[in-house]
Amino acid sequence: MKQGITLRPYRREDAEVVTAMLMPVFRAGDTYAIDPDISEADALAYWTGPERRVFVAEEDGVALGTYYMVRNQKGGGSHVCNCGYITAPAAQGRGVARAMLAHSLEVAPGFGFTAMQYNFVIATNTRAIETWQRAGFDVVGRLPGAFRHPVEGEVDALVMYRRL
Amino acid sequence: MKQGITLRPYRREDAEVVTAMLMPVFRAGDTYAIDPDISEADALAYWTGPERRVFVAEEDGVALGTYYMVRNQKGGGSHVCNCGYITAPAAQGRGVARAMLAHSLEVAPGFGFTAMQYNFVIATNTRAIETWQRAGFDVVGRLPGAFRHPVEGEVDALVMYRRL
Repeated sequence: MKQGITLRPYRREDAEVVTAMLMPVFRAGDTYAIDPDISEADALAYWTGPERRVFVAEEDGVALGTYYMVRNQKGGGSHVCNCGYITAPAAQGRGVARAMLAHSLEVAPGFGFTAMQYNFVIATNTRAIETWQRAGFDVVGRLPGAFRHPVEGEVDALVMYRRL
Repeated sequence: MKQGITLRPYRREDAEVVTAMLMPVFRAGDTYAIDPDISEADALAYWTGPERRVFVAEEDGVALGTYYMVRNQKGGGSHVCNCGYITAPAAQGRGVARAMLAHSLEVAPGFGFTAMQYNFVIATNTRAIETWQRAGFDVVGRLPGAFRHPVEGEVDALVMYRRL
Protein backbone atom coordinates (compact mmCIF):
# COMPACT_ATOMS: atom_id res chain seq x y z
CA MET A 1 0.00 0.00 0.00
CA LYS A 2 1.23 3.47 -0.91
CA GLN A 3 0.70 5.14 2.43
CA GLY A 4 1.73 8.44 0.98
CA ILE A 5 -1.22 8.68 -1.39
CA THR A 6 -4.28 10.25 0.19
CA LEU A 7 -7.74 10.97 -1.17
CA ARG A 8 -9.77 14.10 -0.60
CA PRO A 9 -12.86 15.69 -2.18
CA TYR A 10 -12.38 17.70 -5.36
CA ARG A 11 -12.33 21.48 -4.92
CA ARG A 12 -12.87 24.21 -7.48
CA GLU A 13 -9.19 25.10 -7.32
CA ASP A 14 -8.45 21.62 -8.74
CA ALA A 15 -10.16 22.46 -12.04
CA GLU A 16 -6.98 23.11 -13.99
CA VAL A 17 -4.94 20.17 -12.74
CA VAL A 18 -7.86 17.75 -13.07
CA THR A 19 -8.61 18.97 -16.59
CA ALA A 20 -4.97 18.31 -17.44
CA MET A 21 -5.42 14.71 -16.26
CA LEU A 22 -8.62 14.17 -18.24
CA MET A 23 -7.61 15.53 -21.61
CA PRO A 24 -4.87 13.07 -22.63
CA VAL A 25 -7.15 10.17 -21.75
CA PHE A 26 -10.16 11.54 -23.61
CA ARG A 27 -8.05 12.64 -26.58
CA ALA A 28 -6.53 9.16 -26.87
CA GLY A 29 -10.04 7.70 -27.10
CA ASP A 30 -8.95 4.18 -26.29
CA THR A 31 -10.29 3.66 -22.75
CA TYR A 32 -13.24 6.05 -22.28
CA ALA A 33 -16.26 6.31 -24.58
CA ILE A 34 -15.98 10.09 -24.79
CA ASP A 35 -15.77 12.14 -27.95
CA PRO A 36 -12.00 12.62 -28.43
CA ASP A 37 -12.49 16.21 -29.60
CA ILE A 38 -14.38 17.23 -26.46
CA SER A 39 -13.48 20.71 -25.21
CA GLU A 40 -11.64 21.16 -21.93
CA ALA A 41 -14.66 22.89 -20.42
CA ASP A 42 -17.00 20.08 -21.46
CA ALA A 43 -14.57 17.45 -20.21
CA LEU A 44 -14.43 19.02 -16.76
CA ALA A 45 -18.20 19.56 -16.75
CA TYR A 46 -18.68 15.87 -17.60
CA TRP A 47 -16.29 14.67 -14.90
CA THR A 48 -17.70 16.92 -12.18
CA GLY A 49 -21.32 16.83 -13.39
CA PRO A 50 -24.56 16.84 -11.37
CA GLU A 51 -24.76 14.31 -8.54
CA ARG A 52 -21.15 13.27 -9.05
CA ARG A 53 -18.89 12.97 -6.03
CA VAL A 54 -15.38 13.72 -7.23
CA PHE A 55 -12.13 12.97 -5.43
CA VAL A 56 -8.49 13.84 -5.96
CA ALA A 57 -5.56 11.57 -5.08
CA GLU A 58 -2.50 13.42 -3.92
CA GLU A 59 0.89 12.92 -2.38
CA ASP A 60 2.84 15.68 -0.71
CA GLY A 61 0.24 18.13 -1.95
CA VAL A 62 0.64 17.11 -5.59
CA ALA A 63 -2.50 15.86 -7.36
CA LEU A 64 -1.83 12.47 -8.99
CA GLY A 65 -5.25 11.24 -9.99
CA THR A 66 -8.98 11.79 -9.82
CA TYR A 67 -12.10 9.68 -9.70
CA TYR A 68 -15.85 10.24 -9.63
CA MET A 69 -18.67 8.27 -8.06
CA VAL A 70 -22.30 8.57 -9.13
CA ARG A 71 -25.43 6.45 -8.93
CA ASN A 72 -25.45 4.37 -12.08
CA GLN A 73 -29.22 4.45 -12.52
CA LYS A 74 -32.01 6.39 -10.90
CA GLY A 75 -35.19 5.15 -9.21
CA GLY A 76 -34.96 1.46 -8.38
CA GLY A 77 -31.35 1.36 -9.55
CA SER A 78 -30.07 4.08 -7.22
CA HIS A 79 -28.26 1.69 -4.88
CA VAL A 80 -25.62 0.81 -7.49
CA CYS A 81 -22.82 3.28 -8.10
CA ASN A 82 -20.55 3.82 -11.06
CA CYS A 83 -17.00 5.19 -10.86
CA GLY A 84 -14.37 6.39 -13.28
CA TYR A 85 -10.68 6.70 -12.43
CA ILE A 86 -7.93 8.63 -14.18
CA THR A 87 -4.27 8.81 -13.17
CA ALA A 88 -2.05 11.70 -14.22
CA PRO A 89 0.35 10.60 -16.97
CA ALA A 90 3.42 11.43 -14.86
CA ALA A 91 2.10 9.35 -11.95
CA GLN A 92 1.56 6.04 -13.75
CA GLY A 93 2.82 2.89 -12.04
CA ARG A 94 2.85 4.31 -8.53
CA GLY A 95 -0.31 2.67 -7.24
CA VAL A 96 -2.52 5.72 -7.71
CA ALA A 97 -5.29 3.77 -9.46
CA ARG A 98 -5.24 1.08 -6.77
CA ALA A 99 -5.44 3.75 -4.06
CA MET A 100 -8.43 5.39 -5.77
CA LEU A 101 -10.15 2.02 -6.26
CA ALA A 102 -9.63 1.12 -2.60
CA HIS A 103 -10.96 4.50 -1.50
CA SER A 104 -14.04 4.22 -3.68
CA LEU A 105 -14.87 0.75 -2.34
CA GLU A 106 -14.39 2.05 1.18
CA VAL A 107 -16.57 5.16 0.98
CA ALA A 108 -19.35 3.89 -1.31
CA PRO A 109 -21.38 2.11 1.42
CA GLY A 110 -21.44 5.33 3.44
CA PHE A 111 -23.20 7.01 0.52
CA GLY A 112 -25.84 4.27 0.53
CA PHE A 113 -24.44 2.17 -2.32
CA THR A 114 -24.55 -1.60 -2.04
CA ALA A 115 -22.89 -2.44 -5.37
CA MET A 116 -20.53 -0.90 -7.91
CA GLN A 117 -20.77 -1.25 -11.68
CA TYR A 118 -18.48 -0.36 -14.57
CA ASN A 119 -20.64 -0.08 -17.66
CA PHE A 120 -18.19 -0.03 -20.49
CA VAL A 121 -14.73 -1.46 -19.91
CA ILE A 122 -12.85 -1.73 -23.18
CA ALA A 123 -11.69 -5.33 -23.56
CA THR A 124 -8.21 -4.20 -24.59
CA ASN A 125 -7.77 -2.42 -21.24
CA THR A 126 -6.49 -5.64 -19.70
CA ARG A 127 -4.54 -4.01 -16.90
CA ALA A 128 -7.64 -2.30 -15.53
CA ILE A 129 -9.71 -5.46 -15.94
CA GLU A 130 -7.17 -7.51 -14.00
CA THR A 131 -6.97 -4.90 -11.25
CA TRP A 132 -10.74 -4.88 -10.87
CA GLN A 133 -11.04 -8.65 -10.93
CA ARG A 134 -8.46 -8.85 -8.16
CA ALA A 135 -10.63 -6.38 -6.24
CA GLY A 136 -13.61 -8.70 -6.48
CA PHE A 137 -15.35 -7.48 -9.62
CA ASP A 138 -16.95 -10.00 -11.96
CA VAL A 139 -17.38 -9.62 -15.70
CA VAL A 140 -21.19 -9.83 -15.86
CA GLY A 141 -21.64 -8.76 -19.47
CA ARG A 142 -19.88 -8.59 -22.82
CA LEU A 143 -20.97 -6.19 -25.57
CA PRO A 144 -19.76 -7.59 -28.89
CA GLY A 145 -17.94 -5.02 -31.00
CA ALA A 146 -19.41 -2.16 -28.99
CA PHE A 147 -16.23 -0.06 -29.10
CA ARG A 148 -14.25 1.19 -32.06
CA HIS A 149 -10.70 1.31 -30.77
CA PRO A 150 -8.51 3.84 -32.61
CA VAL A 151 -5.81 1.20 -33.18
CA GLU A 152 -7.44 -2.21 -32.69
CA GLY A 153 -10.66 -1.50 -34.55
CA GLU A 154 -13.94 -2.98 -33.31
CA VAL A 155 -13.46 -4.60 -29.91
CA ASP A 156 -15.79 -5.82 -27.17
CA ALA A 157 -16.72 -3.82 -24.09
CA LEU A 158 -17.28 -5.50 -20.74
CA VAL A 159 -19.73 -4.82 -17.94
CA MET A 160 -18.15 -5.39 -14.52
CA TYR A 161 -19.97 -5.58 -11.20
CA ARG A 162 -19.27 -6.09 -7.53
CA ARG A 163 -21.54 -6.14 -4.51
CA LEU A 164 -20.23 -4.05 -1.62
CA MET B 1 -48.59 -6.35 -38.49
CA LYS B 2 -50.87 -3.50 -37.46
CA GLN B 3 -50.90 -1.60 -40.71
CA GLY B 4 -52.86 1.18 -39.10
CA ILE B 5 -50.07 2.15 -36.70
CA THR B 6 -47.63 4.62 -38.18
CA LEU B 7 -44.53 6.27 -36.77
CA ARG B 8 -43.52 9.90 -37.16
CA PRO B 9 -41.02 12.24 -35.47
CA TYR B 10 -42.05 13.86 -32.20
CA ARG B 11 -43.23 17.47 -32.45
CA ARG B 12 -43.50 20.09 -29.75
CA GLU B 13 -47.28 19.87 -29.91
CA ASP B 14 -46.95 16.28 -28.67
CA ALA B 15 -45.55 17.41 -25.32
CA GLU B 16 -48.75 17.00 -23.37
CA VAL B 17 -49.85 13.66 -24.77
CA VAL B 18 -46.33 12.21 -24.55
CA THR B 19 -45.96 13.41 -20.96
CA ALA B 20 -49.23 11.66 -20.17
CA MET B 21 -47.73 8.42 -21.52
CA LEU B 22 -44.51 8.75 -19.55
CA MET B 23 -45.86 9.58 -16.12
CA PRO B 24 -47.73 6.37 -15.24
CA VAL B 25 -44.70 4.33 -16.26
CA PHE B 26 -42.22 6.44 -14.31
CA ARG B 27 -44.53 6.72 -11.29
CA ALA B 28 -44.94 2.94 -11.18
CA GLY B 29 -41.16 2.59 -11.01
CA ASP B 30 -41.16 -1.06 -12.00
CA THR B 31 -39.76 -0.99 -15.55
CA TYR B 32 -37.66 2.17 -15.88
CA ALA B 33 -34.83 3.21 -13.54
CA ILE B 34 -36.21 6.71 -13.16
CA ASP B 35 -37.00 8.47 -9.88
CA PRO B 36 -40.74 7.78 -9.41
CA ASP B 37 -41.33 11.28 -8.06
CA ILE B 38 -39.84 12.97 -11.16
CA SER B 39 -41.75 16.09 -12.24
CA GLU B 40 -43.68 16.14 -15.51
CA ALA B 41 -41.30 18.74 -16.91
CA ASP B 42 -38.23 16.70 -15.98
CA ALA B 43 -39.79 13.54 -17.38
CA LEU B 44 -40.40 15.17 -20.75
CA ALA B 45 -36.96 16.79 -20.70
CA TYR B 46 -35.41 13.38 -20.04
CA TRP B 47 -37.36 11.65 -22.80
CA THR B 48 -36.69 14.35 -25.40
CA GLY B 49 -33.20 15.28 -24.16
CA PRO B 50 -30.13 16.34 -26.15
CA GLU B 51 -29.20 14.13 -29.10
CA ARG B 52 -32.34 12.05 -28.70
CA ARG B 53 -34.44 11.23 -31.72
CA VAL B 54 -38.01 10.86 -30.50
CA PHE B 55 -40.89 9.26 -32.37
CA VAL B 56 -44.63 8.98 -31.83
CA ALA B 57 -46.75 6.00 -32.83
CA GLU B 58 -50.22 6.92 -33.93
CA GLU B 59 -53.33 5.51 -35.52
CA ASP B 60 -56.05 7.65 -37.07
CA GLY B 61 -54.28 10.72 -35.70
CA VAL B 62 -54.33 9.42 -32.10
CA ALA B 63 -50.95 9.07 -30.37
CA LEU B 64 -50.57 5.57 -28.92
CA GLY B 65 -46.91 5.36 -27.95
CA THR B 66 -43.52 7.00 -28.07
CA TYR B 67 -39.90 5.92 -28.27
CA TYR B 68 -36.50 7.57 -28.27
CA MET B 69 -33.24 6.61 -29.92
CA VAL B 70 -29.85 7.91 -28.81
CA ARG B 71 -26.24 6.83 -29.10
CA ASN B 72 -25.57 4.71 -26.04
CA GLN B 73 -21.99 5.86 -25.59
CA LYS B 74 -19.91 8.64 -27.09
CA GLY B 75 -16.54 8.48 -28.80
CA GLY B 76 -15.65 4.92 -29.82
CA GLY B 77 -19.06 3.69 -28.69
CA SER B 78 -21.11 6.02 -30.88
CA HIS B 79 -22.15 3.31 -33.35
CA VAL B 80 -24.38 1.56 -30.80
CA CYS B 81 -27.79 3.07 -30.09
CA ASN B 82 -30.10 2.77 -27.13
CA CYS B 83 -33.89 3.02 -27.29
CA GLY B 84 -36.75 3.27 -24.83
CA TYR B 85 -40.37 2.52 -25.69
CA ILE B 86 -43.57 3.45 -23.87
CA THR B 87 -47.11 2.59 -24.91
CA ALA B 88 -50.08 4.64 -23.73
CA PRO B 89 -52.03 2.74 -21.05
CA ALA B 90 -55.22 2.72 -23.13
CA ALA B 91 -53.37 1.27 -26.14
CA GLN B 92 -51.86 -1.81 -24.50
CA GLY B 93 -52.14 -5.09 -26.36
CA ARG B 94 -52.62 -3.58 -29.81
CA GLY B 95 -49.12 -4.14 -31.14
CA VAL B 96 -47.90 -0.60 -30.52
CA ALA B 97 -44.68 -1.74 -28.84
CA ARG B 98 -43.95 -4.17 -31.65
CA ALA B 99 -44.57 -1.44 -34.24
CA MET B 100 -42.18 0.93 -32.44
CA LEU B 101 -39.54 -1.79 -32.09
CA ALA B 102 -39.80 -2.63 -35.79
CA HIS B 103 -39.53 1.05 -36.74
CA SER B 104 -36.48 1.57 -34.54
CA LEU B 105 -34.68 -1.43 -36.03
CA GLU B 106 -35.55 -0.14 -39.49
CA VAL B 107 -34.37 3.44 -39.11
CA ALA B 108 -31.32 2.96 -36.86
CA PRO B 109 -28.88 2.00 -39.66
CA GLY B 110 -29.80 5.19 -41.51
CA PHE B 111 -28.58 7.17 -38.51
CA GLY B 112 -25.25 5.34 -38.63
CA PHE B 113 -25.94 2.79 -35.92
CA THR B 114 -24.73 -0.78 -36.36
CA ALA B 115 -26.03 -2.22 -33.10
CA MET B 116 -28.75 -1.60 -30.50
CA GLN B 117 -28.38 -2.04 -26.76
CA TYR B 118 -30.82 -2.00 -23.85
CA ASN B 119 -28.81 -1.23 -20.73
CA PHE B 120 -31.13 -2.04 -17.91
CA VAL B 121 -34.00 -4.42 -18.60
CA ILE B 122 -35.70 -5.39 -15.35
CA ALA B 123 -35.73 -9.18 -15.15
CA THR B 124 -39.40 -9.18 -14.09
CA ASN B 125 -40.37 -7.45 -17.36
CA THR B 126 -40.64 -10.83 -19.06
CA ARG B 127 -43.03 -9.71 -21.77
CA ALA B 128 -40.57 -7.11 -23.06
CA ILE B 129 -37.66 -9.53 -22.77
CA GLU B 130 -39.49 -12.15 -24.84
CA THR B 131 -40.48 -9.58 -27.45
CA TRP B 132 -36.89 -8.42 -27.82
CA GLN B 133 -35.48 -11.94 -27.93
CA ARG B 134 -37.91 -12.76 -30.72
CA ALA B 135 -36.59 -9.67 -32.52
CA GLY B 136 -33.03 -11.01 -32.36
CA PHE B 137 -31.72 -9.48 -29.15
CA ASP B 138 -29.43 -11.52 -26.92
CA VAL B 139 -29.10 -11.20 -23.16
CA VAL B 140 -25.40 -10.29 -22.98
CA GLY B 141 -25.25 -9.32 -19.33
CA ARG B 142 -26.98 -9.85 -16.00
CA LEU B 143 -26.60 -7.36 -13.14
CA PRO B 144 -27.33 -9.20 -9.89
CA GLY B 145 -29.81 -7.40 -7.67
CA ALA B 146 -29.28 -4.14 -9.53
CA PHE B 147 -32.93 -3.08 -9.34
CA ARG B 148 -35.17 -2.64 -6.33
CA HIS B 149 -38.61 -3.50 -7.64
CA PRO B 150 -41.44 -1.82 -5.71
CA VAL B 151 -43.23 -5.16 -5.28
CA GLU B 152 -40.68 -7.91 -5.93
CA GLY B 153 -37.79 -6.35 -4.01
CA GLU B 154 -34.23 -6.75 -5.30
CA VAL B 155 -34.23 -8.27 -8.76
CA ASP B 156 -31.67 -8.61 -11.55
CA ALA B 157 -31.38 -6.28 -14.52
CA LEU B 158 -30.38 -7.55 -17.94
CA VAL B 159 -28.26 -6.05 -20.69
CA MET B 160 -29.63 -6.89 -24.14
CA TYR B 161 -27.86 -6.36 -27.44
CA ARG B 162 -28.41 -6.86 -31.15
CA ARG B 163 -26.25 -6.13 -34.14
CA LEU B 164 -28.15 -4.39 -36.94
